[in-house]
Amino acid sequence: MDIAVLGAGAMGTLFGAHLAARHNVLMVDVSEQRVRRLQEQGARICSAEGELARPLRAVTSAAERKPVDLVLVFVKAMHTAAALAQNRALIGPQTYLMTLQNGAGHEEILGEFAPAGRVILGTTQHNASFLPDGRVHHGGGGETWIGLLTGETAALEPIAAAFTASGLHTAVMDDVRRCIWQKLLLNTSASALTAILQMPLGYILDNPDARALMQTLVREAVAVANRQVRTPLDAQEEILRIESALHGARQGYTSICMDIRAGRQTEVDTISGYVLAMADRLGVSTPCHRTVVALLHALQSRPAHSC
Amino acid sequence: MDIAVLGAGAMGTLFGAHLAARHNVLMVDVSEQRVRRLQEQGARICSAEGELARPLRAVTSAAERKPVDLVLVFVKAMHTAAALAQNRALIGPQTYLMTLQNGAGHEEILGEFAPAGRVILGTTQHNASFLPDGRVHHGGGGETWIGLLTGETAALEPIAAAFTASGLHTAVMDDVRRCIWQKLLLNTSASALTAILQMPLGYILDNPDARALMQTLVREAVAVANRQVRTPLDAQEEILRIESALHGARQGYTSICMDIRAGRQTEVDTISGYVLAMADRLGVSTPCHRTVVALLHALQSRPAHSC
Repeated sequence: MDIAVLGAGAMGTLFGAHLAARHNVLMVDVSEQRVRRLQEQGARICSAEGELARPLRAVTSAAERKPVDLVLVFVKAMHTAAALAQNRALIGPQTYLMTLQNGAGHEEILGEFAPAGRVILGTTQHNASFLPDGRVHHGGGGETWIGLLTGETAALEPIAAAFTASGLHTAVMDDVRRCIWQKLLLNTSASALTAILQMPLGYILDNPDARALMQTLVREAVAVANRQVRTPLDAQEEILRIESALHGARQGYTSICMDIRAGRQTEVDTISGYVLAMADRLGVSTPCHRTVVALLHALQSRPAHSC
Repeated sequence: MDIAVLGAGAMGTLFGAHLAARHNVLMVDVSEQRVRRLQEQGARICSAEGELARPLRAVTSAAERKPVDLVLVFVKAMHTAAALAQNRALIGPQTYLMTLQNGAGHEEILGEFAPAGRVILGTTQHNASFLPDGRVHHGGGGETWIGLLTGETAALEPIAAAFTASGLHTAVMDDVRRCIWQKLLLNTSASALTAILQMPLGYILDNPDARALMQTLVREAVAVANRQVRTPLDAQEEILRIESALHGARQGYTSICMDIRAGRQTEVDTISGYVLAMADRLGVSTPCHRTVVALLHALQSRPAHSC
């Protein structure tokens, strides 16, 4: 397959490096520094299993390129529309657009660049971050789930097989939105709260008020999710799953927490903001989300180093 | 009059120093350092009008004293019950207990130490803070309003006259709760938010999300207030009054904001927490307060220097 990966961040580079074992992969990133590093040093991935080094083609713009079979979008959510518009040359009538980005609602932007039957939604358990020397630290692996909102999911089986053969175990799901919501529930509750509280994830378990807020946020979000998914989620079950995940990541700081600390824009609009927007659209009451989203907006707009 | 002031903080010292011009005033504070300083140096108040120095009697405990005419409570809200219990000897059948403390709901604790007709509620526009050298900085003056929840307010006129004659202009109000709520509205909205956002008061005006949250909190609190006051408050009018106060204090940090920053316990339970508790008791919906109160509890419980 001809595959273009938009966004050569840690996750994009991880997926690109694996897929390049068997496919023609082109990395696209607006950062000249990242592109030059990939051109000169290739992708370098380190994990508990050891180190993977792989040459990768990389460009800052694909404006002059031909359409590919698959465009995998891994830019930060607020840059999705700009990245697709700038590299529209990669998208032909047969091209699939796939998002495995954090959060939800990305299909609305992808749908402006391809017909609904060519927009692949998904979520992944892999996580990755950059080390100071530019290598990608592959913190943990797991499953990747993909699906369509419209059309025959069977058409995705070759793509899932290609990912799996490249070392990224991938399954096609009829109810992919359910998988996306399950990941979203952790982020819209515990991650959002630790960003406001500026504390590691374990504090949600340790502080009774923080824990109660987390549970309220999960219950609100499940009420919204259950208007979208085929098999309803059970709030109590999801809370237990999240609490178990927090036990395993007590010292962890989430990316939204670090973004707030650094005075950077966060992904709030595709996480808690998405839940609130869907709730308002569907007429579901989510008062705790409303306050949390407004606080995150107010926090991320603070001048850097203001506190 | 024989007057005891519980709490020799900046506000207690300010009132004690003025009242001592014409009355027998005894300052009571658990801090030996504060008591010794008052004994050795007296009260030293500085303001735009100049400096006032006045000898003041001060003790760490009034357990062995006789009842006084008036006990003026100026300790931090969470110490009210302990301060009254430790100095119960000051309270006889004729003794008035007066609170001018920040926040609301203090009458419930004072009512455990005196009959309702002897519990004076009030609020003051004076503000004061300690300078590093132990002097009290009298930042601004204004009115003091006092009243009773039960009984004849006329009985308070001699007390108001005594305060006024001592330089603390004081009026007796039939609807004293309305005055207390008006001050509370600023604190439960803008002060609470700046504590979460860790920003000066002006940010509430500058950031649209923070401003919208402030307005939501005021509307919620006015709905609760109007179940308690005789003449209803108008939310829009109160919002304008608060915005005007914020314009005049753009660079100011509130005490709750500084308490959160320093990892100290805040007065949340007698400010936003009081609004929420009253709302729950009266069956008024205050969802934004519910989230804000839980966040402030979670924030003030963080280990010091955790972020």
